[in-house]
Amino acid sequence: RIDGERLLSRLAALSRIGATPEGGCRRLALTDEDKAGRDWLVGELRALGLDVRVDAIGNIVGILKGQEDGPAVIMGSHIDTVGTGGRFDGALGVIGGVEVLAALRDAGVTPKRDMAVIAFTNEEGARFHPDMLGSYVWAGGMSVEAAHAELDSDGAVLGSELTRIGYRGPEQPGFLPAHAYLELHIEQGPVLESDGGGLGAVTGIQAICWLELTLTGRPSHAGTTPMRYRKDPGLAAARINIFANELTKTIPGQLANSGVIRTWPGNVNVVPETVVITLDLRNPLDAPLAEAEAAVRKFCAELSARDDIAISFRDLARFPATPFAEELIASVEASAAEFGLPIRRMISGAGHDAQMMSRLCPTAMVFIPSIGGLSHNPAELSADDDMVAGANVLLSAAWRAANA
Amino acid sequence: RIDGERLLSRLAALSRIGATPEGGCRRLALTDEDKAGRDWLVGELRALGLDVRVDAIGNIVGILKGQEDGPAVIMGSHIDTVGTGGRFDGALGVIGGVEVLAALRDAGVTPKRDMAVIAFTNEEGARFHPDMLGSYVWAGGMSVEAAHAELDSDGAVLGSELTRIGYRGPEQPGFLPAHAYLELHIEQGPVLESDGGGLGAVTGIQAICWLELTLTGRPSHAGTTPMRYRKDPGLAAARINIFANELTKTIPGQLANSGVIRTWPGNVNVVPETVVITLDLRNPLDAPLAEAEAAVRKFCAELSARDDIAISFRDLARFPATPFAEELIASVEASAAEFGLPIRRMISGAGHDAQMMSRLCPTAMVFIPSIGGLSHNPAELSADDDMVAGANVLLSAAWRAANA
Ligand SMILES: NC(=O)NCCC(=O)O
Ligand SMILES: NC(=O)NCCC(=O)O
Repeated sequence: RIDGERLLSRLAALSRIGATPEGGCRRLALTDEDKAGRDWLVGELRALGLDVRVDAIGNIVGILKGQEDGPAVIMGSHIDTVGTGGRFDGALGVIGGVEVLAALRDAGVTPKRDMAVIAFTNEEGARFHPDMLGSYVWAGGMSVEAAHAELDSDGAVLGSELTRIGYRGPEQPGFLPAHAYLELHIEQGPVLESDGGGLGAVTGIQAICWLELTLTGRPSHAGTTPMRYRKDPGLAAARINIFANELTKTIPGQLANSGVIRTWPGNVNVVPETVVITLDLRNPLDAPLAEAEAAVRKFCAELSARDDIAISFRDLARFPATPFAEELIASVEASAAEFGLPIRRMISGAGHDAQMMSRLCPTAMVFIPSIGGLSHNPAELSADDDMVAGANVLLSAAWRAANA
Repeated sequence: RIDGERLLSRLAALSRIGATPEGGCRRLALTDEDKAGRDWLVGELRALGLDVRVDAIGNIVGILKGQEDGPAVIMGSHIDTVGTGGRFDGALGVIGGVEVLAALRDAGVTPKRDMAVIAFTNEEGARFHPDMLGSYVWAGGMSVEAAHAELDSDGAVLGSELTRIGYRGPEQPGFLPAHAYLELHIEQGPVLESDGGGLGAVTGIQAICWLELTLTGRPSHAGTTPMRYRKDPGLAAARINIFANELTKTIPGQLANSGVIRTWPGNVNVVPETVVITLDLRNPLDAPLAEAEAAVRKFCAELSARDDIAISFRDLARFPATPFAEELIASVEASAAEFGLPIRRMISGAGHDAQMMSRLCPTAMVFIPSIGGLSHNPAELSADDDMVAGANVLLSAAWRAANA
């Protein structure tokens, strides 16, 4: 059994690192706050007597040796947050994993297989792209070199930032072979709550497409240039934002968001030269997502021709819909049943490190309800009982996998 | 007569300070580039034997003593630029004034009245608000204290920046009483060129209203939050941008631009919490501008109520339509006729320091054509002959005013 008090007090301790006045957490990947969170985590892992390793992309791994050699049962998530982050997104999965290993140590039992907890680097994609970068590299989807070369919006280099905070480790990402991967996470949406509470056995993750559009017009004087002479990329970006949002009304399951909009030179009286706008497009199915992306590209091509605005596209992330492993989903359900906890199957709206790990091994996730469906918001919250219940389900499913 | 060669070579020298690879100039107010431009200018003024003063807002004044005491005939403009600035916007008026005084010295003549050239601080409004800040303070429209407290978008304080670059001078703004003000400037629009060239005798400046809107919604997760639960201020900003642009089709003479659009926290997968968007609204007449502003505010109020987005407004600049002095406009026309130069009356689309100076004294301006009507663009250009012609008209009109 999970020590619920200790789980909650560890979560509280981590949430103080990067705490914001609004009650949230701002620990953007590879910032000083992230370093402080990492240092704290490494201390906890060491205190548990785990074998602590850091890989070349900064993923932090704590390993509990099993009775036999061979692939490990891995639990994990992330401790980085978005700019308006909350206290539990990612943190719950990492600390849940820590508490699973702590519970086994307390009980004096040793699993057959190795067990491990991993805190993956830059899951949020808030500072560096793509999201789930650490687990993507771990799973071999992206080279270490390519990841090290990623830039944040101020031009800081990921590899240098890793070195700066002391988390460019010696291990090769993926060095620990995986038998199964399990991740506990807050739902971050309203589904479980509106269903009357209870847990979620996640069946998979929807498809994600992140595009960055750079629109170039012609800078000109906002007081002297007749409207018909202007080539305004800001106006084009506005039309694209509205178009993508309208698409969600006609394509089933489609979501769209423009989280970044930036004008250059950014002067009140200058018709912008360049505007950068991002699109986060998602759909539970690959085909309608492709349809949405194609519609956006067609709209942009027409707009570009009509208004003489150059539009270039860059992929920031592109991940297909990812189904999880049936046997592990069923094991999560069985684990909940063991504790008499209600659980329902559902798909995840958010991307998670599990989406990457499922490239390597059978994977599943446990969701707990988010109050008000809020996440990426300082007011993000889950009930204490749900957090403890989720960690118990993780413990049970992980123990099962580690001894099968 | 103006020494045309020397005028052009002085312009070339100044344009090298803050030169951009695109062929423009980036000398944002009170940056290191601006300091370098100021240092150069002060050197030129001193070399001419002028009495050089700097006031508390950083306006640089070079005074040529006349035969009598009393108010001075002032020429001037600015040497700061926008982010995508060109080589002549402002620079021509300052250096034109310098060349007028140099020509008088060369000719060995002394005017009856004092004459002076002023380079006003932060005319562009690109870094600090409002535009024409230095001349606005000079004319008593804004206190030195209020101006010193202005912040740029990174939170740098105007007063501290003045001190940092060494241009917080001892003089009180407005210390030099004005008999008349004359400003030479590039048109920055297409009117003169499309009219077959020739000069412009500016009859006044159109009304300007700069608004900064801060839109606040609810940050949420772009993968998990159903579209109908979102409160997206970025989408609201897009609708406002489009609405303001549509207004220009129905309100005669109306212009609109959104030069600044910024999202916070600015993460791909976060529905923005806050978006800042500026509106630059202009009209030759005060009444239709007021109508446009009222329409924008009404649209925002409805949008705010419908989409539950909080919208707050801040005035960044607000200047009424400003007619110039008939006798001085006529003197500009007469000066052009003296040289056999074609000239037409026109209103200015851009704001200029002359708009502020006309609060103090009879004021007029001389425009020269902008090739392709381009300004606030690195490709901004005017013909050498036009620059020299404009400076000769300035010389003649200023000399007339200084001896009347
Ligand atoms: N869990 C989470 O918020 N992940 C960020 C990746 C995404 O954008 O879905
Ligand atoms: N001349 C000029 O570009 N002034 C900037 C003030 C304005 O926005 O019109």
